[in-house]
Amino acid sequence: MKAVWLREGRLALRDVPEPVEAGGDAIVRVSLAGICNTDLELVRGYYPMDGIAGHEFVGVVERAPSAPDWIGRRVVGEINVVCGSCATCRAGRPRHCERRSVLGIRDRHGAFAERLALPIANLHRVPDEVPDEAAVFSEPLAAALEVQEQVKIERGQRVVVIGDGKLGQLVARVLVLTGCELMVIGRHPGKLAALPAGIQALHVREDTLPAGRRADVVVECTGNEGGLGLALRLVRPRGCVVLKSTYRGEARANMSAVVVDEISLLGSRCGPMAPALTLLESGAVDVRNLVHARYPLADALAAFDHSTQPGVLKVLLQAQAR
Amino acid sequence: MKAVWLREGRLALRDVPEPVEAGGDAIVRVSLAGICNTDLELVRGYYPMDGIAGHEFVGVVERAPSAPDWIGRRVVGEINVVCGSCATCRAGRPRHCERRSVLGIRDRHGAFAERLALPIANLHRVPDEVPDEAAVFSEPLAAALEVQEQVKIERGQRVVVIGDGKLGQLVARVLVLTGCELMVIGRHPGKLAALPAGIQALHVREDTLPAGRRADVVVECTGNEGGLGLALRLVRPRGCVVLKSTYRGEARANMSAVVVDEISLLGSRCGPMAPALTLLESGAVDVRNLVHARYPLADALAAFDHSTQPGVLKVLLQAQAR
Repeated sequence: MKAVWLREGRLALRDVPEPVEAGGDAIVRVSLAGICNTDLELVRGYYPMDGIAGHEFVGVVERAPSAPDWIGRRVVGEINVVCGSCATCRAGRPRHCERRSVLGIRDRHGAFAERLALPIANLHRVPDEVPDEAAVFSEPLAAALEVQEQVKIERGQRVVVIGDGKLGQLVARVLVLTGCELMVIGRHPGKLAALPAGIQALHVREDTLPAGRRADVVVECTGNEGGLGLALRLVRPRGCVVLKSTYRGEARANMSAVVVDEISLLGSRCGPMAPALTLLESGAVDVRNLVHARYPLADALAAFDHSTQPGVLKVLLQAQAR
Repeated sequence: MKAVWLREGRLALRDVPEPVEAGGDAIVRVSLAGICNTDLELVRGYYPMDGIAGHEFVGVVERAPSAPDWIGRRVVGEINVVCGSCATCRAGRPRHCERRSVLGIRDRHGAFAERLALPIANLHRVPDEVPDEAAVFSEPLAAALEVQEQVKIERGQRVVVIGDGKLGQLVARVLVLTGCELMVIGRHPGKLAALPAGIQALHVREDTLPAGRRADVVVECTGNEGGLGLALRLVRPRGCVVLKSTYRGEARANMSAVVVDEISLLGSRCGPMAPALTLLESGAVDVRNLVHARYPLADALAAFDHSTQPGVLKVLLQAQAR
């Protein structure tokens, strides 16, 4: 089958063997896969990787020896494949399993391929009402929901999302549902314009960052030091900064402000898939205007290139010829 | 009166006017004052300051026009003088008052003097059972207690304190009372030896830092990047790092680890004075072996010099001739 292989920061379209189901695994025929900033970071060589990339997908179960009733179901998947028996799993933190593999990121081939293998336990059935073009956002939408698993956000609170990119867009779409007073700060007028109603959008350049500390919660979705510094300037004393994006190497920050103002900095990664699907099913979160392009898998390299262009949001890969 | 004046990182013993009580203020005759790392940082010029330094003290109320029953009482004092009417005060976070002055740190003359002025509302009466030599630790002990205001620490949890200095010692003395499994990591065998029973002490040098991530909570009391880096290496996924010390300038840290492992970084500053006094009164916290030297106020410069020597814990200033 065709797949997008990543090795030492280089992408290549390869013909690779079909995935083989281990005990309990399903083989999923990928319909659509999304390019995420983590994929772009892998290409930039931020993390070591040698295998098929991709972790955002929707597909159809093709083989499932241990659970044949799953065959034919449309699914999305939890990307962390966990052991269930290490101390971390037993302590109720399976997404942090010490022995985990992560689809398309760590020790497990990913979704930029015609087929992938995942344990049945990782799969979530996609409701009929959710088209593939929305379901493919389940994984990053779950990551956006993780913010509220960590911080209670209530009606009337002042919340700022820094970053108008793919992740910031999803975080904003989820947080606005709480009734909080929400502002998104970004650098791309086109992306800011994609935000749904009820969100204040603030366009900033390096030299026009807003001053003042007023936010109860700031969600940093840029993954750069500038975003982190801005978050620390905007949050109120005893407020909370949620870090949703990884940083290239070590990041510098004014940690004395964190101490003096007793700020909480919370790292935030993957989140719960089932409520993400529910939000897509009910229409409470609309992701349609986030899709900026679709490419066949055979043109994956062009798709990646497109995805890195300024102002571009989600680029999808269509794994199957239509 | 005599006082230790700090300006542009230079200490000088000066003759200065007596403090004047504003409405609601008491004039406290200082008995003992403690030199804190924050004072040493002020001397190193980390923060701007032009006035009398010192914020850890015990003394006797000498004048109190608005509350004469306080005269003659032995007191310690809350160092943040707050307005009570700004948005932050009204939101129940008075220690973060936007208009606050801070004794010996910001916009208010401090305790390295024969007398100081503080509002009556800031004073706490010292129980007769607590000698001056213990009461003078109330303020940093309150800061140590702040950790538990922010993180629930329970019996059996693995907790690491990084730093065997003045603050680390107090944090350890407070945390061991929870029944947690407590380790203190430090560089000074003599300081580590001062820890009370029931605490595991680990002596490390730069090149022998412990590996592995096992702690539920790490309390960083060094205020240097190395301590912060070690904290992030030691804490478990979804664990908590409490930052008790300020850092010189910006600090670099592996913020990607914070994100991927969903670590909480909590800044922590001043804490509640009343429970600190209770711990000193009951004898649950014993601070006697932390006092390494006492100097008369007239020898304050020598006292500061002593305080910066390796292996030295608390140095006290005796404000009144005996």
